[in-house]
Amino acid sequence: MKIDHNRAAKLLANMDNIFIITHHYPDGDTLGSGFALCRGLRQMGKKANVICSHEMPGKYDYMWENLPALSFTPENFVAVDTADTQLFGEALSKYADKVQLCIDHHGSNTLYAADTLLDVNAAATAEIIFSLLKIMDLPIDVLTANCLYTGIATDTGCFKYSNTTAKTHLIAAELINLGADKDMINRLMFETKTRARIEIERLALNNMEFYLDGKCALMYISREMIENSGVNEGDLEGLSPLPREIEGVAVGITIREKENSQYKISIRTGPELNAAELCSLFGGGGHPRASGCSLKGSLKSVKEALISAVEQNLGA
Amino acid sequence: MKIDHNRAAKLLANMDNIFIITHHYPDGDTLGSGFALCRGLRQMGKKANVICSHEMPGKYDYMWENLPALSFTPENFVAVDTADTQLFGEALSKYADKVQLCIDHHGSNTLYAADTLLDVNAAATAEIIFSLLKIMDLPIDVLTANCLYTGIATDTGCFKYSNTTAKTHLIAAELINLGADKDMINRLMFETKTRARIEIERLALNNMEFYLDGKCALMYISREMIENSGVNEGDLEGLSPLPREIEGVAVGITIREKENSQYKISIRTGPELNAAELCSLFGGGGHPRASGCSLKGSLKSVKEALISAVEQNLGA
Repeated sequence: MKIDHNRAAKLLANMDNIFIITHHYPDGDTLGSGFALCRGLRQMGKKANVICSHEMPGKYDYMWENLPALSFTPENFVAVDTADTQLFGEALSKYADKVQLCIDHHGSNTLYAADTLLDVNAAATAEIIFSLLKIMDLPIDVLTANCLYTGIATDTGCFKYSNTTAKTHLIAAELINLGADKDMINRLMFETKTRARIEIERLALNNMEFYLDGKCALMYISREMIENSGVNEGDLEGLSPLPREIEGVAVGITIREKENSQYKISIRTGPELNAAELCSLFGGGGHPRASGCSLKGSLKSVKEALISAVEQNLGA
Repeated sequence: MKIDHNRAAKLLANMDNIFIITHHYPDGDTLGSGFALCRGLRQMGKKANVICSHEMPGKYDYMWENLPALSFTPENFVAVDTADTQLFGEALSKYADKVQLCIDHHGSNTLYAADTLLDVNAAATAEIIFSLLKIMDLPIDVLTANCLYTGIATDTGCFKYSNTTAKTHLIAAELINLGADKDMINRLMFETKTRARIEIERLALNNMEFYLDGKCALMYISREMIENSGVNEGDLEGLSPLPREIEGVAVGITIREKENSQYKISIRTGPELNAAELCSLFGGGGHPRASGCSLKGSLKSVKEALISAVEQNLGA
């Protein structure tokens, strides 16, 4: 059932021994939302941990500063920024049918939780957590402000993407006034490219292909490229926006080779095409301008399927 | 003399037939500030034009929408975002000693105008113009909001640089509520790389040099690279931040070849070094984290002078 902020606040107030579930391949918003909520719940005297099926990237380590993992048997499960139980990842799949509350901003949310606080107008789930903490009358300290600023900044490309609203800026102003260390965070998130990242960016740009009169750009990242450049998951995260940032490109596709003819697809679009609808054709989803899906098969067939889908939907 | 916002508002109220001077190699802030001010002054029934010694890049053309240049003999001169009369460029140098009012946010401002409204805490001169228009009780229409948003967004790297404050975000929220077309502007300013720009970025990355144990990165852009890639001034504008964005780099230097052994230098720094102070050693200036200067000589001697200055000041 969809619920509002007040109802979610009441549910949280009645919980204890809480596992906060973040999505696999964790990003700044799922972790920022998770740790901000965790800090709030601990301030209420509750036991709560943030859990993830993948290792949390070290660049986010300021989020769990002074927040040791606690030992307890979980009684309640809250998922943040996670649209579908498939995104729990294998290690957390056992909790798929146990989630009492999901807090999310993805239009593609499958409403798998008993109750869902869904605000698709929020630029980031961290915006919703910010409002929740205020409704629950919990003070937002510097470390919590850092988590929330990170979630908002990373999901908006530092206030650049179209999901950014006036409200997003108002919350950012408040978080900065609360002491969020935006300079440290922005530097870490947006201005610290490893040399490996620069190397793979160059390789990927070399391989860029253009389709449909230049309206569609496709970038392929092979496992070999990843191995040769030595990039890590964090380096790869920032590559997907690149194809669409080229002049005249309405649809940017990034194909990343996983294992056994499996490919992870990221699609970024301008206002000409809904990326979430396009990805839903392949069992994926996300946001109108940024979505993803997974495909199996030969690279050639994967490319053809994607380009064909773009062609059919771009003209419509 | 340094004056406050109220005094500047009174000076402007008493002016007419105004030339608004923007700096050469015009960027989003000088043009956004100039055109927003021009729109405000015209709303008061005054004659005003924005002038620049260089051609204004076409990507900013929404700034002068419905704002035809007027024909009049100038009586008053106002400079915006221009720290020094040298930045007027040759074509406007004749006005160097005629400026009654300068509105600026550069700490390096030489106070060349009769009166100067200087706010070094403003992330962009457009922030100061926003406050001025409000003090003057002038309505900010959508086209004016577009100019101001552009100035703020371009001078802060879309709210990413350390000059961004809580106030910057509050103004951005207000401009969005006033109808600023942030999506169009952000797409044009930050997400429309030409293929030429991608080409020169790759060439420049190939030539990147590292000094001082990787703490200083140096990128050289020759006239040949500019000609071969076919980039324009707008494409080049966004290159300077790249060297400092590499992990471990405290000082990023971009050297651009002009004519006859002349080089235009852009320096970006982290908190470890004041870029404006460094550039002042070479007769340049700007902001603590982003400054520039011009140097003559052989490329080798220019590099050596810069690296030596960085080394001496980075250790201090």
